[in-house]
Amino acid sequence: LLAVPGVSFANAEVEALTKDPKNFATWGGNYAGTRYSTLDQINFKNAKHLQPVWTFSTGMLRGHEGGPLVINDVIYIHTGYPHKVYALDQATQSVIWEYVYAPDKGTDQSQVISVMCCDVVNRGLAYGDGKIFLAQGDATLVALDAKTGKIVWKVKNGDPKTGMTATNAPLVVKDKVLTGISGGEFGVRGFLAAYNIKDGSLVWKKYSMGPDDEVGLDPEHTMTWTDGKMAPVGKDSSLKTWQGDQWKIGGGTTWGWYSYDPDLNLVYYGSGNPSTWNPVQRPGDNKWSMTIWARDVDTGEAKWVYQMTPHDEWDYDGINEMMLIDQEMTAKDGSKHSKLLTHFDRNGFGYTLDRVTGELLVAEKFDKAVNWATHVDMKTGRPQVNPKYSTQHGGVDVDTKGICPSAMGAKNEPPVTYSPRTKLIYIPGNHTCMNYEPFEVEYTAGQPYVGATLNIFPARANVKTGEKESSNHMGSFTAWDPTTGTIAWQFDEPFSLWSGMVSTAGDIVIYGTLEGYLKVRDAKTGEELYRFKTPSGIIGNVSTWTYNGKQYIGVLSGIGGWAGVGMAAGLEGDTEGLGAVGAYKGLSSHTKLGGVFTVFTLP
Amino acid sequence: LLAVPGVSFANAEVEALTKDPKNFATWGGNYAGTRYSTLDQINFKNAKHLQPVWTFSTGMLRGHEGGPLVINDVIYIHTGYPHKVYALDQATQSVIWEYVYAPDKGTDQSQVISVMCCDVVNRGLAYGDGKIFLAQGDATLVALDAKTGKIVWKVKNGDPKTGMTATNAPLVVKDKVLTGISGGEFGVRGFLAAYNIKDGSLVWKKYSMGPDDEVGLDPEHTMTWTDGKMAPVGKDSSLKTWQGDQWKIGGGTTWGWYSYDPDLNLVYYGSGNPSTWNPVQRPGDNKWSMTIWARDVDTGEAKWVYQMTPHDEWDYDGINEMMLIDQEMTAKDGSKHSKLLTHFDRNGFGYTLDRVTGELLVAEKFDKAVNWATHVDMKTGRPQVNPKYSTQHGGVDVDTKGICPSAMGAKNEPPVTYSPRTKLIYIPGNHTCMNYEPFEVEYTAGQPYVGATLNIFPARANVKTGEKESSNHMGSFTAWDPTTGTIAWQFDEPFSLWSGMVSTAGDIVIYGTLEGYLKVRDAKTGEELYRFKTPSGIIGNVSTWTYNGKQYIGVLSGIGGWAGVGMAAGLEGDTEGLGAVGAYKGLSSHTKLGGVFTVFTLP
Ligand SMILES: O=C(O)c1cc(C(=O)O)c2c(n1)C(=O)C(=O)c1cc(C(=O)O)[nH]c1-2
Ligand SMILES: O=C(O)c1cc(C(=O)O)c2c(n1)C(=O)C(=O)c1cc(C(=O)O)[nH]c1-2
Repeated sequence: LLAVPGVSFANAEVEALTKDPKNFATWGGNYAGTRYSTLDQINFKNAKHLQPVWTFSTGMLRGHEGGPLVINDVIYIHTGYPHKVYALDQATQSVIWEYVYAPDKGTDQSQVISVMCCDVVNRGLAYGDGKIFLAQGDATLVALDAKTGKIVWKVKNGDPKTGMTATNAPLVVKDKVLTGISGGEFGVRGFLAAYNIKDGSLVWKKYSMGPDDEVGLDPEHTMTWTDGKMAPVGKDSSLKTWQGDQWKIGGGTTWGWYSYDPDLNLVYYGSGNPSTWNPVQRPGDNKWSMTIWARDVDTGEAKWVYQMTPHDEWDYDGINEMMLIDQEMTAKDGSKHSKLLTHFDRNGFGYTLDRVTGELLVAEKFDKAVNWATHVDMKTGRPQVNPKYSTQHGGVDVDTKGICPSAMGAKNEPPVTYSPRTKLIYIPGNHTCMNYEPFEVEYTAGQPYVGATLNIFPARANVKTGEKESSNHMGSFTAWDPTTGTIAWQFDEPFSLWSGMVSTAGDIVIYGTLEGYLKVRDAKTGEELYRFKTPSGIIGNVSTWTYNGKQYIGVLSGIGGWAGVGMAAGLEGDTEGLGAVGAYKGLSSHTKLGGVFTVFTLP
Repeated sequence: LLAVPGVSFANAEVEALTKDPKNFATWGGNYAGTRYSTLDQINFKNAKHLQPVWTFSTGMLRGHEGGPLVINDVIYIHTGYPHKVYALDQATQSVIWEYVYAPDKGTDQSQVISVMCCDVVNRGLAYGDGKIFLAQGDATLVALDAKTGKIVWKVKNGDPKTGMTATNAPLVVKDKVLTGISGGEFGVRGFLAAYNIKDGSLVWKKYSMGPDDEVGLDPEHTMTWTDGKMAPVGKDSSLKTWQGDQWKIGGGTTWGWYSYDPDLNLVYYGSGNPSTWNPVQRPGDNKWSMTIWARDVDTGEAKWVYQMTPHDEWDYDGINEMMLIDQEMTAKDGSKHSKLLTHFDRNGFGYTLDRVTGELLVAEKFDKAVNWATHVDMKTGRPQVNPKYSTQHGGVDVDTKGICPSAMGAKNEPPVTYSPRTKLIYIPGNHTCMNYEPFEVEYTAGQPYVGATLNIFPARANVKTGEKESSNHMGSFTAWDPTTGTIAWQFDEPFSLWSGMVSTAGDIVIYGTLEGYLKVRDAKTGEELYRFKTPSGIIGNVSTWTYNGKQYIGVLSGIGGWAGVGMAAGLEGDTEGLGAVGAYKGLSSHTKLGGVFTVFTLP
């Protein structure tokens, strides 16, 4: 492993590691989160000859999200809570070290499990400064020595007793480790925190809602899209959109992905749904839930914000990854932009923003089944809600039916990928709709603060046209042009895609399916080139790297996550698992629990 | 699946199924237990091109013993206790049905687990009469409808509260299902039972020790090797070899494998160690523990018996499989024999008997590290014990050191294979020795009745010569000539082999290793042709079959069993797990828990 001379180089080191396609050194493959690899040994011509070359069971059964990191030949994999982390030697396919989670004194493991909303998953590790970082389910951030697996430091980032947990993959930027918090279904007020990479001391912590200073908003200088241009957010931009003290239990958690632009020194991420899911109970826009954030990494101050779903009524949690791509485009107003931010929101809209300024360039449906809003008004940046699918309009104890997408979103947490060769983004789509019945709920710390009963089911409408269909498919592999906001082409998948994709210079896209297939498609046509049934359903993200000059592909199997929570947690009622259980019943004839890492290559 | 017209055809049906190499219809591939397949698509020339084609996680973590049954294209796999059974569709690689164990009222699952000596394993299923049979850990025999997985009948074969459990693969013979019992470490008096295949009613039950009628001995007609020839056992042959009532808690359990010769109508199997492991406490030969049995299938009466290790002092549990092979041989006395029974005992001797008469033909060490006995006296059939390694001689509370093999045996439960093409038997060898300290123990029903503390370690002696070696290897792949009792050739393996082998007409031998490799060797030379690291350590048995005319190989991974009990049950002290934990500590850097079925074929 690397010996790093000083703190300030952690950033340079990680950047350098991500530039060598031998490694897969961050969750997104690089700071931009494009999950694109310049490797091309495995390509659209030979991918059909792929084969598994070794496998490794993690010894854990519940959902395995995230993907392996590969740093200078060492593979680091992880499991959900209660965590294990393994450093694996590719030469011997054996364990260099393992970290086995043990609860701190006073931490009740089963209590932690009870407040993890959507299976006890974890979205992966971060590397930097000779350490491996894990945001533990118990909301403790741990730094492990990358050579030995021994704990270097750990710090409490939240209290599970009040519903705080962690599932996110941290991100190392400069001398800091960034991590967020989960608990939107427990009234947790979300924040992003930056810890000192050397000793775990807190550098800054910025909330998604509340007073300007706590949120890191400068009324004069933090900008947002207003009437067709960027304008300062003004004073108390968050407080003004909440009734009384509701912002204190207002959600907007930060359990997703963090991207970084070294030139702009900005970190990008999304905040989650406002709490509770019953919209009637919390009037207002509930700012800055459901928001795209651009924060200065050194200070945490927000440079700009954009709220996608004001006053959420559907749990269209806005945490999906921000992918930073460099591509020339001309906006409808004729302005030119090249430093773009793209985001595929749970709410079904694919956004393109200027990541320097925060200007809104594109907001179009990437799944035409979406019906809760007719469109996004490009001037106000607000969605035009269809009252028929407004649960606020329906009101408490009324079951609003046929809303598309479901609360799971037209895409959930698995990250997209972008190929600069095809200039397309590949989206792991979730093609489901729902009935949603809000109910009155009272807040009790550490207890569910959900306030809605859901039924989730296949959309039965064409992804490309929105026209009615008889097919029960619940997933979509969608290729998207981010400059025009159009679907280039699309393929149905039987189950929701819940696996982070990778694209490569070999013009292939690789991802997993809930049934357990690793699939490779042609990046230009979408044609399926290869599939292999791994031991369990895949909710993990694919990585690719080289070892001894040969290209490999690796992925964690292990059904779970929200879509698989019925199987992972043994739930049976259709509306259990926040509505997921009914929709995914069919999965259990395809696959069973079990965390296994599978490595593929060409013969 | 087959529609079977009547009971009496179950036997013919199973025999027919085993004759078509498309199937793998019994634990041994056939009634003889040769685990030889006439398939040759995969052979010594092309085995290097093998690749996994699909995988299936069972969703269970602890040891996965036994192998898949393949009956007319349907694959049946199982897990240890608490059991799951899956019928898998090869076309879709998905689940046709699953059986999920639920404890009967009054059965305490954790109590059952606490009386399973050597991990909560199960050695596999049996098929017959349109049913799949499972001997459950709770000592209940269950018959499942092979088409639906629904329970057709079940019957209590023993009471876990008194330490009775089951791990064996039943055998369907004619209109009966044969099954045994585990619990030698709990003073259980072993028996073999035959149940009616239609309704589970008991047909006969014969004990390993006790009064002649309960044991199924005819003083005049049951024969045993005596002074160089077969002679009647005489009256009370068992009772006479026990002090008082000790036979009632005398062990001799029957947790291994059952073979059958349809022409002779005899079932063959071995009985286990006498209880307790403290030999000083139970004077006498302790008949008929440690015995090879030949019983009439219709009546249960013993035709002949042969006790391998009279008055066991080492836990050389005699249950290893009896493999029935047809090969011409001339015994040392010049007599000719061709219907042979071969057996590789825990005690380190490889036996060849005439399976018609029970005559002892060969008894030679298949691992020359073996030191507890110098040889087997071919006239008396008794081993010549070396007092230095006699724990009886050492006495209570004395640690007798350096005994070879260890209690685990020079071979444990994983079955051997025989190729009629090479005329060699391939043995999964366990190359370990031990220190053994007996202690006084009192019997309490349902409590351990072990009475010895063990330390197990690598033999550090050459398998072929017995000469001292520095190597710490604990396993051996050994090719054996059963007519001469000689090692043809042998290869060291890092860890004890705990996986049942298969040999084929392609002149290959296939097996798994504790580190998790599936390995293929050349049947003629032993050369390693292929290896693949499966998700977890392999203690399962390999099967081979065809589907749509193509040959496949399948095996369950899932570290556990006695060798892996430290990992499976989370034990840490060196002498825990009946002495196994210390010896196999190194395993945990190679592999972790997890039950996965992996299927291989050629591209
Ligand atoms: O509001 C939250 O804090 C929160 C946390 C999590 C999480 O941490 O896994 C999920 C969600 N919400 C959520 O809405 C959601 O759809 C979801 C899916 C998953 C998953 O891992 O499959 N987690 C979460
Ligand atoms: O005496 C018994 O009843 C009994 C039962 C079992 C079993 O049922 O698994 C084993 C043993 N003994 C035993 O001696 C032994 O070495 C052993 C190994 C294993 C295994 O599955 O790895 N089981 C057993």
